[in-house]
Amino acid sequence: MESQQDTAPEAQSAGASSGNRNISSRLIVNALPVNDEERKRFVQAAGGIRQKFVNSVADRGNMLWHAEVPEELQTEVTAILGNVKPEQASACPRLEWLQTWSAGVDRYVAPGALGEHTVVTNATGAYGLPVGEHMFALMWALMKQLPDYSRNQAAHRWEDAGDVLSPQGGSVVVIGTGDIGSYFARLAKSVGMHTYGVRRDASRGADGIDEIHSFDDLDDLLALADVVAMVVPSTPQTHHLLDARRLALLKPNAIVINAGRGDAIDPKALLDVLHEGGIRGAGLDVTEPEPLPADDPLWDEPRCLITPHVAGGNHLAQTSTAIISIALENVRRYAAGKPFINRRR
Amino acid sequence: MESQQDTAPEAQSAGASSGNRNISSRLIVNALPVNDEERKRFVQAAGGIRQKFVNSVADRGNMLWHAEVPEELQTEVTAILGNVKPEQASACPRLEWLQTWSAGVDRYVAPGALGEHTVVTNATGAYGLPVGEHMFALMWALMKQLPDYSRNQAAHRWEDAGDVLSPQGGSVVVIGTGDIGSYFARLAKSVGMHTYGVRRDASRGADGIDEIHSFDDLDDLLALADVVAMVVPSTPQTHHLLDARRLALLKPNAIVINAGRGDAIDPKALLDVLHEGGIRGAGLDVTEPEPLPADDPLWDEPRCLITPHVAGGNHLAQTSTAIISIALENVRRYAAGKPFINRRR
Repeated sequence: MESQQDTAPEAQSAGASSGNRNISSRLIVNALPVNDEERKRFVQAAGGIRQKFVNSVADRGNMLWHAEVPEELQTEVTAILGNVKPEQASACPRLEWLQTWSAGVDRYVAPGALGEHTVVTNATGAYGLPVGEHMFALMWALMKQLPDYSRNQAAHRWEDAGDVLSPQGGSVVVIGTGDIGSYFARLAKSVGMHTYGVRRDASRGADGIDEIHSFDDLDDLLALADVVAMVVPSTPQTHHLLDARRLALLKPNAIVINAGRGDAIDPKALLDVLHEGGIRGAGLDVTEPEPLPADDPLWDEPRCLITPHVAGGNHLAQTSTAIISIALENVRRYAAGKPFINRRR
Repeated sequence: MESQQDTAPEAQSAGASSGNRNISSRLIVNALPVNDEERKRFVQAAGGIRQKFVNSVADRGNMLWHAEVPEELQTEVTAILGNVKPEQASACPRLEWLQTWSAGVDRYVAPGALGEHTVVTNATGAYGLPVGEHMFALMWALMKQLPDYSRNQAAHRWEDAGDVLSPQGGSVVVIGTGDIGSYFARLAKSVGMHTYGVRRDASRGADGIDEIHSFDDLDDLLALADVVAMVVPSTPQTHHLLDARRLALLKPNAIVINAGRGDAIDPKALLDVLHEGGIRGAGLDVTEPEPLPADDPLWDEPRCLITPHVAGGNHLAQTSTAIISIALENVRRYAAGKPFINRRR
């Protein structure tokens, strides 16, 4: 039970360098939607290693970037920058390194997904700002009744929606204190909240967190939370972490935000507690399942604000820039035979 | 052209004390929805001055508090705590002091509204947090496309709404840097924005404002603003302050927030610029006119987020508490013959 951002040691031995220091035998397929300036920097970073750019900057503004290794390069490619399909990556016999543009790499590190010799690095660090800010916006919208006012506006109704909340002096419990949880905590702290963090290894603090706790203290913390902010990855330990029993511990005015993985909350239990007014509201950027089916009752729950897993999307210029800068650093390291940053396997 | 919060010197000679230091001849009608504990404190604060409590704590949670002077007390009353109708106040011949629970006192200080001998004090200071926070929530909602996602949710649509914005590194221009503008500026600054303030007297700074400017610089500032936050009162000088010409100076991604008075923006010009995509969006807690008529096209403008003049309402426990504490302080001063705080005339 840990944030998806904080399990990767920052730098480990590259591994990819073993047995293949020959520049001419290596080929990078770069599927990042880079502009001309960035392309030049990647060429420079790669030293003499050949690099094929297979994406266009036109893809930059899209939510879902697209990555594919051209068939004629599959036998040759030794490094891929971009989220190709796992089966395509595993079909590249010489692949020694995959750099994703996502933070989550579940599909690539699953047993048997890629060859044993393939190192995987991710884009941890690029998502703190966009996802942390998105969670913060969901929190404010729920505190100030904005979903209600949006509904009133759609009906052209000038109508008071009742009492609101302030974060000032309140407490937030951040579950998963990696890059994203820490960014959110800093925002919450800056507007007057006290921040509790929950992580597997409570001996490590996190930026923006006033008090760090282990999962043993979770139930006690839930009982005092004004806001619960969840950013845990999908693991057997985090499955339905917030279940009916734990939801019942929350205060009636508590707000739950989830931007990690949808299955960290039991959706049926959440619907029940929202429907009964047991908590103030929920802001979900992730759901179980995804996409949320059109007939799911959660869509109509007035205390629930849903966004379709877009917080980490490449909707912010800053996110793309940060991803590209991580990949660039790792290309430099690949060329120099140095340990990668953000290594996940 | 000045924020409604910053024209009142903090303390001036009470005036109310002249010629009426006789305790037995004075009567306070207290129309605040106080609880038992607060009532005791008001009785204590008033010294020996008689005080009639005419409201109930049940009114506390309502948006619009209700104040009326019972007919039998109208000839006797010398002080009113609460927003009675101006005609009722002017029908009280001995009225020497009116304490409002609002920040705006336009109706009471208009020429001829009240007798010459009546002092008016307001609740400036109680609205910085609720209104500043509401403006901040509107800004975040627009930056993260939440109105779009609310519409998608209503239609059960799991659909990406496109690119978003971050306040990080952006600039906000706060027009009217009184209590509310200053509070908003502090929030904006705490999440990474540079804050410009515009006020009549640019020699006075304001908390949370990085750079203070006079209205002479307004056009230049609008051209660099990522967010324009308006909190000016309704005066001939602020009428349609943001008109078609000034709206055209804004950047295409600029967001306009208005929580002062609706007529500070030309509504037709705003509709046009929103409709043409000339700016990113507008968050309005105030409109022209109010209530916004059901057939006003602004309701349907997707880039506009409307709340019905609720930001300053008593929807936050903190607001009520702050109003009551201001009134309590002034009752103490009334009893002691000391200068009032928050005097407006």
